[in-house]
Amino acid sequence: MGNFDSIMKKIKNDSVKVGIIGLGYVGLPLAVSFAKKGIEVLGFEKSTKKADAVNAGKNYIGDIRDEDFVAVVGSGKLSATTDFTRLRECDAAIICVPTPLDKFKKPDMSYIAASCEEIGKCMKSGTFISLESTTYPTTTEDFMKPIIERESGMREGVDFWLCFSPERVDPGNKQYKTENTPKVIGGLGDEAQKIALALYGKAIRELYPVSSPRAAEMVKILENTYRLVNISLINELALLAGKMDINIWEVIEAAKSKPFGFQAFYPGPGIGGHCIPLDPFYLEYIAKGFNFDLTMINAAGNINNLMPYRIMNKIMYALNRQGKAMNGSMILFLGVAYKPDIDDARESPALLVMEQVARKGATVLYHDPYIPEATDEHGHRYVSVELTDKAIADADCVVITTNHECFDVDRIVAKARLVVDTRNAVKRVHIEGDKVFKL
Amino acid sequence: MGNFDSIMKKIKNDSVKVGIIGLGYVGLPLAVSFAKKGIEVLGFEKSTKKADAVNAGKNYIGDIRDEDFVAVVGSGKLSATTDFTRLRECDAAIICVPTPLDKFKKPDMSYIAASCEEIGKCMKSGTFISLESTTYPTTTEDFMKPIIERESGMREGVDFWLCFSPERVDPGNKQYKTENTPKVIGGLGDEAQKIALALYGKAIRELYPVSSPRAAEMVKILENTYRLVNISLINELALLAGKMDINIWEVIEAAKSKPFGFQAFYPGPGIGGHCIPLDPFYLEYIAKGFNFDLTMINAAGNINNLMPYRIMNKIMYALNRQGKAMNGSMILFLGVAYKPDIDDARESPALLVMEQVARKGATVLYHDPYIPEATDEHGHRYVSVELTDKAIADADCVVITTNHECFDVDRIVAKARLVVDTRNAVKRVHIEGDKVFKL
Repeated sequence: MGNFDSIMKKIKNDSVKVGIIGLGYVGLPLAVSFAKKGIEVLGFEKSTKKADAVNAGKNYIGDIRDEDFVAVVGSGKLSATTDFTRLRECDAAIICVPTPLDKFKKPDMSYIAASCEEIGKCMKSGTFISLESTTYPTTTEDFMKPIIERESGMREGVDFWLCFSPERVDPGNKQYKTENTPKVIGGLGDEAQKIALALYGKAIRELYPVSSPRAAEMVKILENTYRLVNISLINELALLAGKMDINIWEVIEAAKSKPFGFQAFYPGPGIGGHCIPLDPFYLEYIAKGFNFDLTMINAAGNINNLMPYRIMNKIMYALNRQGKAMNGSMILFLGVAYKPDIDDARESPALLVMEQVARKGATVLYHDPYIPEATDEHGHRYVSVELTDKAIADADCVVITTNHECFDVDRIVAKARLVVDTRNAVKRVHIEGDKVFKL
Repeated sequence: MGNFDSIMKKIKNDSVKVGIIGLGYVGLPLAVSFAKKGIEVLGFEKSTKKADAVNAGKNYIGDIRDEDFVAVVGSGKLSATTDFTRLRECDAAIICVPTPLDKFKKPDMSYIAASCEEIGKCMKSGTFISLESTTYPTTTEDFMKPIIERESGMREGVDFWLCFSPERVDPGNKQYKTENTPKVIGGLGDEAQKIALALYGKAIRELYPVSSPRAAEMVKILENTYRLVNISLINELALLAGKMDINIWEVIEAAKSKPFGFQAFYPGPGIGGHCIPLDPFYLEYIAKGFNFDLTMINAAGNINNLMPYRIMNKIMYALNRQGKAMNGSMILFLGVAYKPDIDDARESPALLVMEQVARKGATVLYHDPYIPEATDEHGHRYVSVELTDKAIADADCVVITTNHECFDVDRIVAKARLVVDTRNAVKRVHIEGDKVFKL
């Protein structure tokens, strides 16, 4: 039996063994989804701590239900290892590693490259390889394939197959999880596509096949570029609205009453998380290779980059109204998670604002029930303080940077001397009360 | 009884008389909506032809049902006049005139100004005045109010009331018409807001009150800026995708499979119609008065402005593949309406492309079943030709510029020598067949 028939048969009778590289917020939920359907999954992690946690049945991802996790580890369907040579046990390898940007907004492909090298060195003939990490179009064909062929001495389409299938994980989303979010599938060639559809079909309810890996790569970038551009647009309009004595939050709610052709986005101190501030810049990077300048992404990026400074200015203006300089003031930030009700502070704009405010001589404190401690870009470490009445009243200014549901906004406004609200947490139409300043 | 109590009583017992200034695609449907509910409407038009048509019961707006129109004219509830002194008969005046941009993208406020002058000269004390024309925030308070006070010698809030309530007409929309599209209401002051809600509530099913005219003005601009920015973004990505051998249409359809956080927009030869290419630039205009540069709108405007030239280039590249120069070729454009299945060619990008192609020496023809003749920006007049097999086969290139449902695309592709498809009318994934070139 040839490689193709062999893997298709294993998928059909649930004897396929899936390796998942990277057990973070993408890889681990996917691993659980396969394991729940009776597919054996071996997770690969550089972090011994994470691998040990998985093997001990200790769930560390909020979007996975603990009982599901315990069940699949208990049944032996899910285990983890730090030994990448065990890739040779797997029929399929799914890469779920991060693709950060470096300080110069150049994609850092080192995690994908390392995964491809490990796979190339260790895999057996007939392995199906899928990349889920967001990256620029052409990565699967022009970046991954040469590394794997070089390391393995095998040939794509004959000895192994390639696919790109973007993760669409929205941390904290109550309705859409890995299993019920439609998944875009871009196999390289017909056989890869057939294997991909058969394999992912085991774990994911709805698949959306496209004609190539590069189309699938572009899909993910389009989704997140759309979000970056629209958040940046509303941030820019919010700044103008402030000058024109218009409450942008009221305007957005009213625009939402249009039953067609509008989707609401909200302003804030900048854009955080692992996707929206990064993904569009992969595309900007590769576009330059095609002598193409993406002016919309560029403009959006500039607005986003400036927001922490604009918020710092707003805080300074608010203090100034009360006759205070920022230098020497005590500023309490509420929320450093990049969105409400999650425990993730990656790329959090709150930290960027805190850093700027500290540079201007203020004493900076923060409270976030989900983030006990946080470190800014320059390594300064902050520890969350308790949100006592005294802490609120002692601060010269309280800045609401994340709109966690658990914040008692009425109490905060009542106790505070001055509030700068960057998230419309204080539901009032008029922009500036005596002590509440809104973005 | 004071002015306020008097108009509120008239609204309550349906004896209020409403004047509507401008009987175009906004004013006439609104007039019919009021008249259908038994409110007497007097329409004001500069065009004798339009006023006569209304009085003869001849409907000229596609979104109005003929039987509704005949009924309200027949019952005497709707009539029209060119005599603006008859504004004194009205208790309310609703302005539905155009606000174009001049060649330098400066808002042309002359229609609004003229309407305000007529109202100021003719109105009786106690008139409620509402503006529906899209315009920059602050227009109602800072532009309209002084003109009306000057011309009338009356005082806003005492002798007359002001309101801004943006039209949301989407020509050709089968589901949402004037009556069932929620309407944003921004009265200036409490009395104006109460009158506005009572009056519009007679004709419109759902009202959405906001705190001020300027908020209402901003709502409309936000809605259409959102559309301009997103169409421009996808146009820019489409141009890049073409260079990267990615079919942007396939990518958009796949991105739509994401069940949250995405709304699809489609590329094309540019943005047409009376709203989206114009409205954001009102905001850009007023923003400059606040020393504010709207970089997203600016970038979006640039992309949109360049699209007709990019499409002209695509046509030239396509001809070049077949060894032909544009100079001396015959090019047949299909569709000059700015969107499918409507009879409106205002700001149509097709005409801009046609103009550029003609300048390069091509013979330009077009066919559009909805637009028997069309005139480009420089006054060149075109007449729609019949879409015979011979006309298709004779053209060196057929360019699909509007995706009218009635176009038989299979037949067009079969008969044509070369097709440039700017609207994904030809449903194929791969970008370039032997003779089909896609945007």
